[in-house]
This record gives sequence, structure tokens and C-alpha cells, in this order.
Amino acid sequence: MSVLAVDIGGTKLAAAVVDPGGRIAGYSRVPTPHDAGLDAEGLWRTLEALLDKVLADAGSPPLVGVGVGCGGPMTWPAAEVSPLNIPAWRGFPLRDRLRARHPGPPVRIHNDAVCVAVGEHWRGAGRGRGNVLGMVVSTGVGGGLVLDGRLVDGASGNAGHIGHVVVDPDGPPCKCGGRGCLEAIARGPGLVAWAREQGWRPEGRDVTGVELAADARRGHPLAVAAMRRAGRALGIAIASATHLCDLEVAAIGGGLSQAGALLFDPLEEAFRTHARMEFARQVQVVPAELGQTAGLIGAAALIYGGDRYWSAD
Amino acid sequence: MSVLAVDIGGTKLAAAVVDPGGRIAGYSRVPTPHDAGLDAEGLWRTLEALLDKVLADAGSPPLVGVGVGCGGPMTWPAAEVSPLNIPAWRGFPLRDRLRARHPGPPVRIHNDAVCVAVGEHWRGAGRGRGNVLGMVVSTGVGGGLVLDGRLVDGASGNAGHIGHVVVDPDGPPCKCGGRGCLEAIARGPGLVAWAREQGWRPEGRDVTGVELAADARRGHPLAVAAMRRAGRALGIAIASATHLCDLEVAAIGGGLSQAGALLFDPLEEAFRTHARMEFARQVQVVPAELGQTAGLIGAAALIYGGDRYWSAD
Repeated sequence: MSVLAVDIGGTKLAAAVVDPGGRIAGYSRVPTPHDAGLDAEGLWRTLEALLDKVLADAGSPPLVGVGVGCGGPMTWPAAEVSPLNIPAWRGFPLRDRLRARHPGPPVRIHNDAVCVAVGEHWRGAGRGRGNVLGMVVSTGVGGGLVLDGRLVDGASGNAGHIGHVVVDPDGPPCKCGGRGCLEAIARGPGLVAWAREQGWRPEGRDVTGVELAADARRGHPLAVAAMRRAGRALGIAIASATHLCDLEVAAIGGGLSQAGALLFDPLEEAFRTHARMEFARQVQVVPAELGQTAGLIGAAALIYGGDRYWSAD
Repeated sequence: MSVLAVDIGGTKLAAAVVDPGGRIAGYSRVPTPHDAGLDAEGLWRTLEALLDKVLADAGSPPLVGVGVGCGGPMTWPAAEVSPLNIPAWRGFPLRDRLRARHPGPPVRIHNDAVCVAVGEHWRGAGRGRGNVLGMVVSTGVGGGLVLDGRLVDGASGNAGHIGHVVVDPDGPPCKCGGRGCLEAIARGPGLVAWAREQGWRPEGRDVTGVELAADARRGHPLAVAAMRRAGRALGIAIASATHLCDLEVAAIGGGLSQAGALLFDPLEEAFRTHARMEFARQVQVVPAELGQTAGLIGAAALIYGGDRYWSAD
């Protein structure tokens, strides 16, 4: 059996053929095109070429389904997608187009961070557990929620927005329009902005989260403080989520999670400060396991694990 | 068909016979005994006498089940209960005892605030909706969570602890051992303590939440400020829960919710400040509908709506 799995983000388009064990039998990726004047159909043709290549490389197997993770927002489950970082698609009928291209097997599309969480539950750090929060911490902070063994979709497919749990009500404004959201503090660009305000200057280098993390590893006090700030915000948000949802595992992936102890130590400290009841202290906060392919594996699980991960039509 | 529904709290023991429509066909209550020297068996005998009376009054109908809401904490679903405000029961095997008393039909026990939320979902402010947070705001702040049409239990039956969502990380210490929890700020005694610190003096009257609410209705500025403080904390916590769970309805019951606009206006203001994304703005924050009997109706729903509200054995 084979599933065609697709991961659509602002940086890259990736696709793979995934077997029922979650193993990737074929994989390809291209940078997401951002040419001036690129229209919706142009981007669709790029995606189609990628899918053609991946399927051909895998020997054109018969498909039991097509699973897709795509940047939000989107309508769900209809999946008219308007990814924040892909201006060429606004209300693009991705599910309809993929159904027309692959008539017969189910086509299922969910938020890309939700797919990462599903991947971690199916074959990663949350496997075998019933109550798992999967998170992606990088340019934004996203997530997905598996409770009582099932993916939670919520009213409109938007459950899992851990990035907008409020961790500091009087904190910095967030791109969502709110204030003091986890994402406003812990997203890479937010950290960099804060560090610069405090006086951090990456002399002769780019002003990026990568350089900030590098300086933190070298012990630069402002960079270390920035990581502490992000870790603390994450710990507070995970404590809140734990109390509300009675989690077993919080699995944290995305670029920033690679900062290791610089991030996880203050995270753990804040979590332990706020999560004191016995049931809450049982939660394990761990790095995600699947790395770059988590989203593809989760997209495949929308098909293979449809009983747990797909509640819509 | 009849269910024997029971509600066990620190103030009262209540019981009723409930029909499949959620109507209460018989009802009785007694104050929870707190005599010095009362032991576990003494309290059990008080409960048995209450159940005998309710069943006799209803004509001793055959029971399709026994549903119980009980103050936490408890092991779940085994329901060895240790209600915070009932010292006579510590690890009391309530489910086993009720099973021995009513052999045959299922006996199902859940947290009392969870039962209130279930009641509001089944027959109250959340009926017909798939994603509902039910809350009780009084001496403590508790709740329960229905997502994708099912009660969420979480890893140990503790999902729904909205009272320990963090709304002010540097805020007052909470009885749970944490800091800045919603409950630490918005519970009645917390409000009273804060108002007194600010200089509120209910001259010649008791220092209680009831008097504080009365003064707020009279326009006493410190009492109004206390209600604002609670409303704001509630609005922040509900915004966080909405983002994480993609809710449709948050239904708020308990004594404090009767403060009306004095509480709900600042709540709504804080909610609107923090819940700005389109899906989050759809949520309706409303007073609970079922009043004092919500917990009993929810306890009955553990039986009648077992497919949605009971995931355990």
C-alpha cells in the first residue's frame, strides 16, 4: 500500500510515497517559488511536476490515498487554502484539484503543524500514548492536539493553536491581533527582535535566529537570556495546556527546538513552577523525534490512521 | 427509564432520579455533614439514607445506571475519591460501594465540575454544539471539555482543569502549588482577599464573595474593580482555551457567574482583546443554563450519553 504525502510551506514543497509503516519510499522537494507575477496556476503546475516526479521515482504505485499538510489558514475540511507565506494561493481549492488529479482514493488535507503533531503521535515521540501535544517552534509557533487517542479538530479544524495561548497578558502584540501570545514571544523573529532591543548585535553576521542560537551556545548573555525567555514562555503555555487537557507528552519540534538545553532547561523550570498537581507533573516534555519529515509522515497518517486522525467526510 | 444521579460536594449531597430527557423526577438534598469525628462510614450512611429517600419518593423505579459527580481529586475511572472539602473521605472506594449497593447497571463517577460541563452540553447552553467548555466559578474554578462531540478525559480523567490555566505568570500563588492560575485570581475567596488588600471593608457585614458582589452592584469602586479583575482573568483563560481547542461555546456557571454584566463585560473585553483570529471570534461566552441541577443532569448523562461522555470501562 502507498500513500502520496505532501507538505506545502512557504519555504519548500515536499512530497513522498509513504508505506503503512510510516517509511518513506520516495521523496523529493523543491523550493516554494516566489517569483514576481507567479499566479495560482503557476504554483499548482510546480506542485504537479513535483508529484509526477515522486510517483514516477517510486514506480507509480497504486495509491490508497493522498494526505497533505499545508500552511494555514484554510477552510477545513474543504481545504480552500490561503497559506500566510504563499501569497499566490488565496482560497485555492487544493482538495478539489487533488481529487480531480487522483480520482478515487481519499484526499485529506490538514494544517501543516497539525500534520507534524499527528506524525509524532503515529510514529514519533508520542507513539503509544493517548494524550499528546505536538508543537512546531520556528518562524511561528504551531501545533496539534491528540486527546483520548484521537486528533482534536475543534469547531473549524483549528484546534492545536498553542502559539496563541496567552503567556503574558500585557506582553508584546502578536501578528494575530492579540497580545502576549506564546508565538509573539517565542517565535524566532520575536526572539531576535527582543534580543536586539536589549542590545544584542551580531557583528558582521546576519540578524537571525540561527545566529542568536549560535551566540547563546557561545554563552553570550543576551542570547542566553533570549533563549531563557522563549523557554519560559513555552513552559508556561505547556503547563496551561496540560491542566486543560491532561496531557502525557508534549513533543517540541521546529528549528528553535534544536537549541537543546539552552531552551529546554528554562522551559522545564517554568513548567515545573506552574504544573504542580500530581497529574500535571507526569507530563513528559521532549524533543520531537521525526525531524524534517514529520509533516509528511503525519500527512500519510491522515489516510493510514483515518480512524484516529480524520473525523471529517 | 431512570438513572439515579448523585452530586457530592463539600456543601451538600444531592440526589435525583433523572429520565432520558434530562428531566428530574425526584430530588433531595442534605447538607454535607462535617461533625467532628465523622468517619468515612458515617458519611456513607448519610449518603445511603439520601439515596433510599430519593428512590422511595420516585416509586423505586428500575435503574439503567447510577451516575455521580464528586469533588476531586479522585482516581479515575476507579473513583477512589478524596474530595478536598470532605476530609472524612480519603481514598474512599465510592464506585465499588455503589456497585455493591446497585449490582447490575453501570456505575459511573466523574469530577463534579466535569459533570456540570457534561450537563450543559447535553441539555444546557452547549446543546447541539460539538466543542464546549463548561466552567464553574465559585469557591474554586473548575470545568470540563467536550471536543469533537465527546467528553475529553485526558490521561487520568483530569482534563478540563481550566482553573489552572496560567493567566498571570507572576501572579498570586495558587493552592495547587503553582502561580498565577485563573483560580488563584478568580475564585471567590481570592477576589475577597484581593479587595481587602486594596482596602475594601464590608462594614458590619461578613467578608464574603456574596457581600463583595453586592457592593459591586451598588457601584463600590473596589468591589467593581475586583469583579473586573476576575472577569479579565476569565477572558484571558477562555481565549487561551479557545485557541488551543477551537471552541464554539464557553458556558460559565457557579456563584460568581451570577454577578452578571459586572463580571461578563470585563470578561468579554479581555476575551475580545486576546481572541482575534477569525475562528476564535466565533466563540460564544454565555452563562450556564441549568443552574444548581447541572451537576445532577450531567451525572445522568454519563449513563444516557455514555457513547459521548464515558470512554472508560
